[in-house]
Amino acid sequence: MTVVPTSRSVTEGILFTDQYQLTMAQAYFRQGIHERTALFEHFFRRYPNYGSHQAGYCVAAGLEWLLDWMESAHFGDTEIEVLRSHRDGAGRPLFGEDFLSWLRVNGTFEGISLRAVPEGRVVHANASVAMIEGPLVMAQILETSLLNHLNFQTLIATKASRLVEASRGQQVLEFGLRRSAHFGANAAARAALIGGAQFTSNVGLSHEMGIQPRGTHAHALVQAFMALGEGELGAFRAYAEAYPDDCLLLVDTVDTLESGVPNAITVFDELRAAGHEPVGIRLDSGDLAYLAIQSAQQLDAAGFGNTRIVLSSGLDELAVFQILAQIDQEAPRYGIDPDQLIARLVMGAGSKLSASQGQAYLDGVYKLVALEKDGVLQPAIKVSETPAKTANPGDKDVFRVYDQRGRSTADVMAPAGEGVADDGLTLRHPVEAHSIRSLSEDEISHIEPLLVPTLRAGKRLTQAADLEEMRARRQADLERLDPGVMRLVNPHRYHVSLTPSLWDLKQKLVGEARESVPS
Amino acid sequence: MTVVPTSRSVTEGILFTDQYQLTMAQAYFRQGIHERTALFEHFFRRYPNYGSHQAGYCVAAGLEWLLDWMESAHFGDTEIEVLRSHRDGAGRPLFGEDFLSWLRVNGTFEGISLRAVPEGRVVHANASVAMIEGPLVMAQILETSLLNHLNFQTLIATKASRLVEASRGQQVLEFGLRRSAHFGANAAARAALIGGAQFTSNVGLSHEMGIQPRGTHAHALVQAFMALGEGELGAFRAYAEAYPDDCLLLVDTVDTLESGVPNAITVFDELRAAGHEPVGIRLDSGDLAYLAIQSAQQLDAAGFGNTRIVLSSGLDELAVFQILAQIDQEAPRYGIDPDQLIARLVMGAGSKLSASQGQAYLDGVYKLVALEKDGVLQPAIKVSETPAKTANPGDKDVFRVYDQRGRSTADVMAPAGEGVADDGLTLRHPVEAHSIRSLSEDEISHIEPLLVPTLRAGKRLTQAADLEEMRARRQADLERLDPGVMRLVNPHRYHVSLTPSLWDLKQKLVGEARESVPS
Repeated sequence: MTVVPTSRSVTEGILFTDQYQLTMAQAYFRQGIHERTALFEHFFRRYPNYGSHQAGYCVAAGLEWLLDWMESAHFGDTEIEVLRSHRDGAGRPLFGEDFLSWLRVNGTFEGISLRAVPEGRVVHANASVAMIEGPLVMAQILETSLLNHLNFQTLIATKASRLVEASRGQQVLEFGLRRSAHFGANAAARAALIGGAQFTSNVGLSHEMGIQPRGTHAHALVQAFMALGEGELGAFRAYAEAYPDDCLLLVDTVDTLESGVPNAITVFDELRAAGHEPVGIRLDSGDLAYLAIQSAQQLDAAGFGNTRIVLSSGLDELAVFQILAQIDQEAPRYGIDPDQLIARLVMGAGSKLSASQGQAYLDGVYKLVALEKDGVLQPAIKVSETPAKTANPGDKDVFRVYDQRGRSTADVMAPAGEGVADDGLTLRHPVEAHSIRSLSEDEISHIEPLLVPTLRAGKRLTQAADLEEMRARRQADLERLDPGVMRLVNPHRYHVSLTPSLWDLKQKLVGEARESVPS
Repeated sequence: MTVVPTSRSVTEGILFTDQYQLTMAQAYFRQGIHERTALFEHFFRRYPNYGSHQAGYCVAAGLEWLLDWMESAHFGDTEIEVLRSHRDGAGRPLFGEDFLSWLRVNGTFEGISLRAVPEGRVVHANASVAMIEGPLVMAQILETSLLNHLNFQTLIATKASRLVEASRGQQVLEFGLRRSAHFGANAAARAALIGGAQFTSNVGLSHEMGIQPRGTHAHALVQAFMALGEGELGAFRAYAEAYPDDCLLLVDTVDTLESGVPNAITVFDELRAAGHEPVGIRLDSGDLAYLAIQSAQQLDAAGFGNTRIVLSSGLDELAVFQILAQIDQEAPRYGIDPDQLIARLVMGAGSKLSASQGQAYLDGVYKLVALEKDGVLQPAIKVSETPAKTANPGDKDVFRVYDQRGRSTADVMAPAGEGVADDGLTLRHPVEAHSIRSLSEDEISHIEPLLVPTLRAGKRLTQAADLEEMRARRQADLERLDPGVMRLVNPHRYHVSLTPSLWDLKQKLVGEARESVPS
């Protein structure tokens, strides 16, 4: 087995955090409030905006990896030693031995309880994705890693979901490893799979997810045989010899239509004569729509009407949408049925998927919403210069409201335990006072709580979902989403609302905070 | 010490690769060419283009981590077991036992030699960043991880370098961990440090790099004390009590100018009375230029003219450039000297730096440029549909040519061993036949080879540079770069050229490849 360098266990353990979590932790410790019960809320403020196109929903991902991390991350001797070496501005130890001793014993996530939206589900801006409860210090220290795990995988699962939708049900393969953010490539591949990508080229990660990776060959194989004087045809023959039942050939090393596809057909004929069916070709440069049509013509004429055509090179959801639209229009002119052609396509998505080109981060936050005082949780608030940035206070539940068509029509937040009436609802916009919406009983078909109890005092309450289950959740949620919300460009705005009692609580706390300002 | 889960040693070991590297490897093995010496070249095609602004140079980073990875990554029993489980289209094992046995014994990077541009140095589009030589199979398998390591860190070091330049010498702190790509956050922080960021908030990574992390407190600290009825002032006092010599306060939780700064000044007075000097304040929302001026006014009036003002929230190089320009114009109106104000600023850069918002990946590639035949390295070529995508063939050296002002004026590639004449040079554009430039002897002050022998048959030839050394390289290179090339927007195009003999070789091979196309 590969030995993981010691340093990685430090950089990927509990010290995978921001320094201010630790300085705050010690400040809490000094005030004796470090073990008070605190409640934090995780949500994101904006859907990804890729510039020319924008998401109208997100797909939750990253939770199981966060839970795994929480199980093993703790302050061991090495970590304490690292903190002991830090110095303050006067050159004295930054962290006191009393605090470090406390941390060595109590520095685990065993006291954390968590309710969260399961992976694969559709989630919306400004609605809680997770509520975290635990001793102030450890709930605070969790912030950085929780955000790191959930922000990024949700970002990529969302991008993958859009690509899959744009691909009209055709397979999407992820292969962005080479341009991903170092080991973040693994999280990217996992998230892409949750978001609906069928396979990834990432070998280790595929094993981790219990599937087989996908991959054929690169230009280098063709170049190698060219350098040896055996040409593209020699390369194709060598590949077919090694993989008679998995023969998918990259045809654009020399000239796609003049050399690549004709050589592929020669090899496909030889394979079939030997009793094997070829898999197909891959196009990796040029006008992919045009080349797909022309290649299909050549393949059809040679009797290979069922082979796959894999497209790659710069694909994102908008590129795929445009390519398929171009095929719709152009294919009939060449005697090709566009639907049949599209049905044999596979989309290979690399850099733009795995790095979420256009919007490279999700702006998820982690806000203190309540803190224990005299044994009671007191709701907490932050009054921002921007009203939309003021978080909704206190412990909350989130409900998804479905209309009579079975479509989700709003996510509603309510103070925890209050629930929502199913005989009619008043929905308040989180910020705009005059924006009030009423749903009568007969407009509502179903109300569903979204936050699932996941950890209670560090113990898992749910079993890790397998990949198929997470994908099925996404599929079910998309089927119940308004098509306008799923539009690639300028999507319809999904409603996220507060119940009147949560709205009232928020106004009261904002008022009190404002009064505290010296005048 | 934190225990690293077993699965991570698989996903971050040698299986951190694309499946097609392994299928190609077996195809080479079947043809008996797997141990032939191959030469690959790594370069990137385009500088990052962030949309509204573009890079005109990059800063190389990632190499040392790649070398570390290469030292430990190998095909052990676990990895072979994973490959053994793969099935082909007919349900049979995808990889043969003979190939797996070979891989178990030979599947290390001990045969790889590498020449590369050292980390921290300025590098340019289409010039070799690394030349890799070794047995075909292992040099091929290296591709994915090499690109992953170098592409991402170079992308982030470049972004950091731009931010540092825009900051006019003021400190830049990296704190993007929460929105980075999972464990890629560590690579991002390292690269930001190489690119010139002074510190990072990332605790584990700072330890790895031998520096202390930076961080103070978040809004949560203030909210916690507000919920306990002690208000912002109570929070500031608690923080000052814990860190009397490191007191930097976040002042925008309630109202920056009406509450945050006045409360900070109260605490600063108390600190000074107790014999401590406060460090400063942090502004994290609103109009940062305006708030910096107003805060400075209040701090100056209270006798705290030397405290730092840390700016954060959405900073990238263009935002920083604009904020400083606004301070230049606006500060005098409020009786504030703009240079003095700017001299006390610190830039905190998070998501936009660590995820390289606008351009989320670098398009570095890894191309086969030569392969052994009959004991001789044969140059290899890929003829692309796009001429600019045709790599330059064969083993090469790269030279940087400095003009009489000591400024770098071009990077020139030549066939390995040929060198370049220092009594005058003819430079050919890599693609455009009519673009020829001549440099006479008296226009050249110095010619410097850029590729440093780094690995010979798996053994390191160089010592790992420390952070200061890598930063010094960047600093020295930037001082020798034309200011036009460093411009944030629409930078001047740096010349990357071929010697006439490399140009001739390329034309010859392109011609031969084209002739091989069936007509």
